[in-house]
Amino acid sequence: MKTDEAVSLVKAKLPEKRFNHSLRVAETAVKLAEIYDGDKDKAELAGILHDYSKYDDLGSMYQMVRQYDLDSDLLSYGSEILHGPVCAVIMENQFGVTDEEVLLAIKNHTTGRAQMSKTEKLVFIADYIEPGRQTPGVEEIRDLAYNQGSLDNTIYEISKRTVLYLITKDITVYNATIACLNYYNYSDERVKDD
Amino acid sequence: MKTDEAVSLVKAKLPEKRFNHSLRVAETAVKLAEIYDGDKDKAELAGILHDYSKYDDLGSMYQMVRQYDLDSDLLSYGSEILHGPVCAVIMENQFGVTDEEVLLAIKNHTTGRAQMSKTEKLVFIADYIEPGRQTPGVEEIRDLAYNQGSLDNTIYEISKRTVLYLITKDITVYNATIACLNYYNYSDERVKDD
Repeated sequence: MKTDEAVSLVKAKLPEKRFNHSLRVAETAVKLAEIYDGDKDKAELAGILHDYSKYDDLGSMYQMVRQYDLDSDLLSYGSEILHGPVCAVIMENQFGVTDEEVLLAIKNHTTGRAQMSKTEKLVFIADYIEPGRQTPGVEEIRDLAYNQGSLDNTIYEISKRTVLYLITKDITVYNATIACLNYYNYSDERVKDD
Repeated sequence: MKTDEAVSLVKAKLPEKRFNHSLRVAETAVKLAEIYDGDKDKAELAGILHDYSKYDDLGSMYQMVRQYDLDSDLLSYGSEILHGPVCAVIMENQFGVTDEEVLLAIKNHTTGRAQMSKTEKLVFIADYIEPGRQTPGVEEIRDLAYNQGSLDNTIYEISKRTVLYLITKDITVYNATIACLNYYNYSDERVKDD
């Protein structure tokens, strides 16, 4: 799928604020791709498309989970966790997106997971730090991402904040979120991105 | 195994402070068994024995994990996570403890897990609230356990505090700990203990 086609698709589907967020995620992911030697085209496409299913109704999302044999644990979660995996199957099956890194980046943008590919990392981080985000502490994460030279440390700090937030709010933590947190927790032997 | 036999075994093995902690966990578990209609004998035995392997050396613990085919993820953790599962296989295989609830209560006393049996719940909670514990906020947990009538809510609050502590300290969270947290998170539909 080409960039302008993706932009039109998302513009026609999402409310303006969410559409603008999508563009900012794409721009941020490209900026990170430049710093970390990633694939700018893949980062941009995944960024534009990642929230396409954000406001789909929950019933149709559950149907997609069953139809495409996604992780059945998803059936215990709401749209916040579901919209990434559902968007990826829609992009693959209804819009002919074939690039696996792009599809994975869409699928896992909310939760992360262990052993992410480069494009997944870029979109996961971009979604957290795009300039419209005002989450408390986001400036520290921006500094990590732009100036400290490690995607993996950035992912760990995002995961850590996310899980602390979820638990404090009594929100059930999806397994991929914890897998991501544990995987990127290098503790005292943090290593360079592979 | 009889109570006096268990006491002698643990007294001969553990430092005095840890031995006294074990007795307090047993007493607390019995007290909770009275409130929640649990099996006092099982609660007492598991309480006495639960920390028997607390200070075993890590090499021998890893050997037990392999020998008894325990969860291989345990090989990525230290003695804090290992001593429960290792103690349970030692009690079963070297000391002839056969009661499954007692063995499970020993095995899971540190992490908890989803769908614990009554004795597991009692020992898990007793280990957190026994009178020698001075963890910040422990009085709230004692109040929950003794006065609020729900083992499951008490387990959830303990799990929540434990996971928040671990993540804040950059300590990897074992999967059973998260499974326990998620399982006992009834959120807005907290139900009575089964």
